[in-house]
Amino acid sequence: MFDVDTASQALGIELVEAERGRAVARMAVRQAMVNGHDIAHGGYVFLLADTAFACACNSHGPVTVAAAAEITFVAAARRGDLLVATAAERTTFGRNGIYDVTVHRSTQAGAEVVAEFRGHSRIVEQPGPAG
Amino acid sequence: MFDVDTASQALGIELVEAERGRAVARMAVRQAMVNGHDIAHGGYVFLLADTAFACACNSHGPVTVAAAAEITFVAAARRGDLLVATAAERTTFGRNGIYDVTVHRSTQAGAEVVAEFRGHSRIVEQPGPAG
Amino acid sequence: MFDVDTASQALGIELVEAERGRAVARMAVRQAMVNGHDIAHGGYVFLLADTAFACACNSHGPVTVAAAAEITFVAAARRGDLLVATAAERTTFGRNGIYDVTVHRSTQAGAEVVAEFRGHSRIVEQPGPAG
Amino acid sequence: MFDVDTASQALGIELVEAERGRAVARMAVRQAMVNGHDIAHGGYVFLLADTAFACACNSHGPVTVAAAAEITFVAAARRGDLLVATAAERTTFGRNGIYDVTVHRSTQAGAEVVAEFRGHSRIVEQPGPAG
Repeated sequence: MFDVDTASQALGIELVEAERGRAVARMAVRQAMVNGHDIAHGGYVFLLADTAFACACNSHGPVTVAAAAEITFVAAARRGDLLVATAAERTTFGRNGIYDVTVHRSTQAGAEVVAEFRGHSRIVEQPGPAG
Repeated sequence: MFDVDTASQALGIELVEAERGRAVARMAVRQAMVNGHDIAHGGYVFLLADTAFACACNSHGPVTVAAAAEITFVAAARRGDLLVATAAERTTFGRNGIYDVTVHRSTQAGAEVVAEFRGHSRIVEQPGPAG
Repeated sequence: MFDVDTASQALGIELVEAERGRAVARMAVRQAMVNGHDIAHGGYVFLLADTAFACACNSHGPVTVAAAAEITFVAAARRGDLLVATAAERTTFGRNGIYDVTVHRSTQAGAEVVAEFRGHSRIVEQPGPAG
Repeated sequence: MFDVDTASQALGIELVEAERGRAVARMAVRQAMVNGHDIAHGGYVFLLADTAFACACNSHGPVTVAAAAEITFVAAARRGDLLVATAAERTTFGRNGIYDVTVHRSTQAGAEVVAEFRGHSRIVEQPGPAG
């Protein structure tokens, strides 16, 4: 349940930790993810945040999908940056959940926020006895 | 100005058309974009929508970036699907713009909406005379 | 089904038209809705947009509620402005719907957009035969 | 700077506390805010959250406005409920800020979340020396 899916693995996304309602994932910004100015395409930052969100909302057991998400791009990420996405559950109600994800990168001056993401999850099925 | 960036090209995203405030881009869902159930990772759907948005908001000339975006996942996209993202300007004010992007896929029954995306753009510089 | 609710009536909101998936509502900006600079509190602009959204998404019959909404404030509304909110269905899927609402005001130079709103609806019950 | 504006006062909104980047406001759900089923119009819940957001983002000094906001309605609020909105700064960058606001109501079983709100602020002017 806590594995990062194949699509995320192909981008080099690693799951660093995961516990109930929480997950941390990281990804290095590769050549294929940047434009001519070495700035990462925002879509890859979204992908990283979305992966951390998926791991966090599925950490409770029932199969849960992303229903919607909002992302605000705070600062540019550049080729070679190691991005870390930290997802935390904000609230759950019925089959729905809200998760906040902050993506940051390390700099000499400390951690800098790259993006803020809010994901809306929905439980789609209850797993059976065999899981 | 209307070229899809390298990061998008690497995913096989093609720009089908672009005019002032409008753009259409398409992408086939590849093996590397799906999970074990052949469902596309939502992040790739976002990437396609975000690319169409970027082409539309940059079609006016000044260099414009994505400041924020919201996406609602309407239906699952599957391996082999050809996804088409259509971006249209909704309004502009000052250096800001709002663009709506619909992502759909073709089915035997017609076009089916896969995702609805709203992008918020911001002009970051005015190109110079040679720009 | 098409009546504006009591809470909206108390603000002077009028429903101008409503048809399947679409609604237009209007409201004058009153003294009680503005701050010391005669600028309308954004919450009242939201209330107007939300009312048009509710009328549009309930126009299909089944009782439908607002599950979520995003609003972007484009320009300030002032005391005495007549605001008009136009809601249109963007897509529906299962029990869910997405509606876009534009709020504008009339000026001597023509209509000016005050806010863009996107509402997410959810059907909560099917009305019975008498419903 | 920390005063709730007139428009909010007219609804009975009180500012409970405010410090740098944080604010708490409360409002009782009145007869004029509910529909025929005694359920509060979501717009009033938005107004309360938006007021707490405005107090939090203006607590730093420079005049700051709401540029955009998203709200998710988690549970219905009813006539007579005392709603409490707690706003906290999430991040700031340049002239922009992101604030998260949770609205809850007290029940016999404890606090229940009514809505989650995320506000996007923008500094519009720097106050002068007399500021």
